[in-house]
Amino acid sequence: MSITKPIMTSEELLAHWQGHRNLTRRFIEAFPEKELFEFSIGGMRPFSDLIKEFLAIAVPGLTQMVSDEPVEFDEERKELKTKADLLKAWDESTEKINELFGKISAERFHEEVNLFGQYKYPVIYNIQYFIDNEIHHRGQGGVYLRALGIQPPFFWER
Amino acid sequence: MSITKPIMTSEELLAHWQGHRNLTRRFIEAFPEKELFEFSIGGMRPFSDLIKEFLAIAVPGLTQMVSDEPVEFDEERKELKTKADLLKAWDESTEKINELFGKISAERFHEEVNLFGQYKYPVIYNIQYFIDNEIHHRGQGGVYLRALGIQPPFFWER
Repeated sequence: MSITKPIMTSEELLAHWQGHRNLTRRFIEAFPEKELFEFSIGGMRPFSDLIKEFLAIAVPGLTQMVSDEPVEFDEERKELKTKADLLKAWDESTEKINELFGKISAERFHEEVNLFGQYKYPVIYNIQYFIDNEIHHRGQGGVYLRALGIQPPFFWER
Repeated sequence: MSITKPIMTSEELLAHWQGHRNLTRRFIEAFPEKELFEFSIGGMRPFSDLIKEFLAIAVPGLTQMVSDEPVEFDEERKELKTKADLLKAWDESTEKINELFGKISAERFHEEVNLFGQYKYPVIYNIQYFIDNEIHHRGQGGVYLRALGIQPPFFWER
């Protein structure tokens, strides 16, 4: 890395992500129970499956970054059957993300990690991917909500 | 800013954004001409209008950050009537973004700018918002493409 213009700290990136995660939480709340698990457009996954993907990525991904031990990717999570289940799992992840993020050193952010045995990139690229992936799929969820006649939470409120 | 763990440089943030912009360009290409300007779901804007929003934000926003002079927000762009028009405007913005980004000093990223007279945040927050907003609305465009029976460009290809 050439640190010619360092412009962001670890703490700022974490705050940015948790702001997005807070918004995603409000998207979960905005879905009616049934549609959260069933509604889709164009053969895409229901919003609950996207949330399970985010859960499968965040804490397990950070765990591998911190431990440097291989971690399995598992987005099945069949035990998460209700909106309340998803919100509880979400909140538990929020705490664990804060804890794990603090254990990543500045140097570590630019070391490669072979995430889930298949995404071999520097730690920071993988974390940016986590955040971008969440924003991308949340945008998809916003169209689902609009198609259901529901106003999505405002994008700029975190 | 507490620079306890600087983890990203200006150059890296620019490369990240241009990677996303390259993906957005392929989304524009993926839309059929007519649907690019007309197709929508749930009363949302067609994808061409979202592209015009991105164009209205990027170069004008960076121009204000560099000059510190007020800049108007204009997403009308009635002269952009075809896919070719949008792609040409997109490519022109790509060059200008590279040029303007290089003029923002490391210190400037953490100074406040009252963007378009209404978004008063540090420069870096506004730039992160530009990127996140593009990812969010591109996710919306992905649902449009799926609903049209078109496979969207892969999210992970930049």
